[in-house]
Amino acid sequence: MKFVRFNANSTLLTGVLDGNQIKEISGNMYTEWDYTGQVFNQSDVKLEAPLQPNQIIGIGANYVSKVEDLPNELPEIPVFFFKPTSSVIGPEENIVIPKGTEQVKFESELAIVIGKEAKNVAEEDVLDYVFGYTVGNDVTAPRFFHQDGHWTIGKSFDTFTPLGPVIETELDPFKVRVEAKLNGVQKQDSGTDLMIVPIRRMISYLTQVMTLKPGDVILTGSPVGAEFVGAGDIIECEIKEIGSLKNTFVSVKESVKTN
Amino acid sequence: MKFVRFNANSTLLTGVLDGNQIKEISGNMYTEWDYTGQVFNQSDVKLEAPLQPNQIIGIGANYVSKVEDLPNELPEIPVFFFKPTSSVIGPEENIVIPKGTEQVKFESELAIVIGKEAKNVAEEDVLDYVFGYTVGNDVTAPRFFHQDGHWTIGKSFDTFTPLGPVIETELDPFKVRVEAKLNGVQKQDSGTDLMIVPIRRMISYLTQVMTLKPGDVILTGSPVGAEFVGAGDIIECEIKEIGSLKNTFVSVKESVKTN
Repeated sequence: MKFVRFNANSTLLTGVLDGNQIKEISGNMYTEWDYTGQVFNQSDVKLEAPLQPNQIIGIGANYVSKVEDLPNELPEIPVFFFKPTSSVIGPEENIVIPKGTEQVKFESELAIVIGKEAKNVAEEDVLDYVFGYTVGNDVTAPRFFHQDGHWTIGKSFDTFTPLGPVIETELDPFKVRVEAKLNGVQKQDSGTDLMIVPIRRMISYLTQVMTLKPGDVILTGSPVGAEFVGAGDIIECEIKEIGSLKNTFVSVKESVKTN
Repeated sequence: MKFVRFNANSTLLTGVLDGNQIKEISGNMYTEWDYTGQVFNQSDVKLEAPLQPNQIIGIGANYVSKVEDLPNELPEIPVFFFKPTSSVIGPEENIVIPKGTEQVKFESELAIVIGKEAKNVAEEDVLDYVFGYTVGNDVTAPRFFHQDGHWTIGKSFDTFTPLGPVIETELDPFKVRVEAKLNGVQKQDSGTDLMIVPIRRMISYLTQVMTLKPGDVILTGSPVGAEFVGAGDIIECEIKEIGSLKNTFVSVKESVKTN
């Protein structure tokens, strides 16, 4: 099932995408909801980010380029980081390159949406707590990394976390490829079997530390191939079973002009 | 005005503390609210954390020990970090020392509560966006810092962000002292004039990066004197004009026993 949020007549609605139709729903997407009976053509509405996350947690440097490069031992403490929920945008919105730098990086990622409160969950049980999956772009401005290794500012600018187009609840996350096309040219294309810290381990580890909640989004890392980009570049992050998340990079000046 | 959240007859309520009385309110604390007419004696209810933050942003290593040590130039990129909202507890609750370490650090801090959406705000205007102030304890387990400098896991465990006891909306943040007593012995006691990145600069900088929202909490750093502590230790973080935030450290084993 594909959940979406969309804008129709200046109202933000939630629905289920079925072919080219969106059937509006009401209630709590994670627990109990109903169809309202309203149906929209997808072409008549603007898709927004499919959720307003409760929190966004990312993992750093989590892909190798080929299976033979996977380490025998997993890192004792994986590199996790938070991104602010204020950084979320939806499909087709502009990613604003901040003042002070001309280049940022795209990072196409499988994004996990948590659906149930999760604490101390064993690896074999973690998928019971997953609501679904979307595509994320973990935009990063390395110019704003702190010299002591803190990434916070470099990953926190408004517009730096495109999500979408849908939350797919029926995905097998172990059988998808995470792709990115920059200006139409393929730059990233890896199976999730190339993750160093695999999905079950990643979520289980996090639940040993903190209570995950419905609406928490986990960005599972980006395949090799991410590059620096600048104003005017167009990035499409894609997982075929979920859809394509397309955004254009603009400079701060352009973003002010168009507002 | 002192805003509190409290538990009365197993219901979480919001109110205004007036002397020893709590007057319940309804509505949106940040914008429009009314007294419900219900009044409680403070001694009859349990105070909770005074808000469920939207996000928690901290700043690292932000105090010198004396004014003469303040640097002439501010850091170009301050060390900011996020803590998960799941780590929040209230006064008198236990701080659970996680498996894998026996010692954690307390850090008494002035915590700023944002009341209005804030983007690109000049230093002279930032206080217009502040709702009020509470006391925070930025509990930290350095054992879980990543060797490359990432603090995320070491600051993210459940119970690692005590907040309270009240949100004081009438504070002059430039005239308070941030204190901590460990088992009754004074360990921290500094004026906020010893901050390296001062409050106005800190908030203005953050708003150049991200849109701050009502309920965002900014932990403004901890004075010199924070120490390692273990199970059984009692920490009181205090800013006299706000109140004292008292919590006891327990081991995971004890925390399971008492649940």
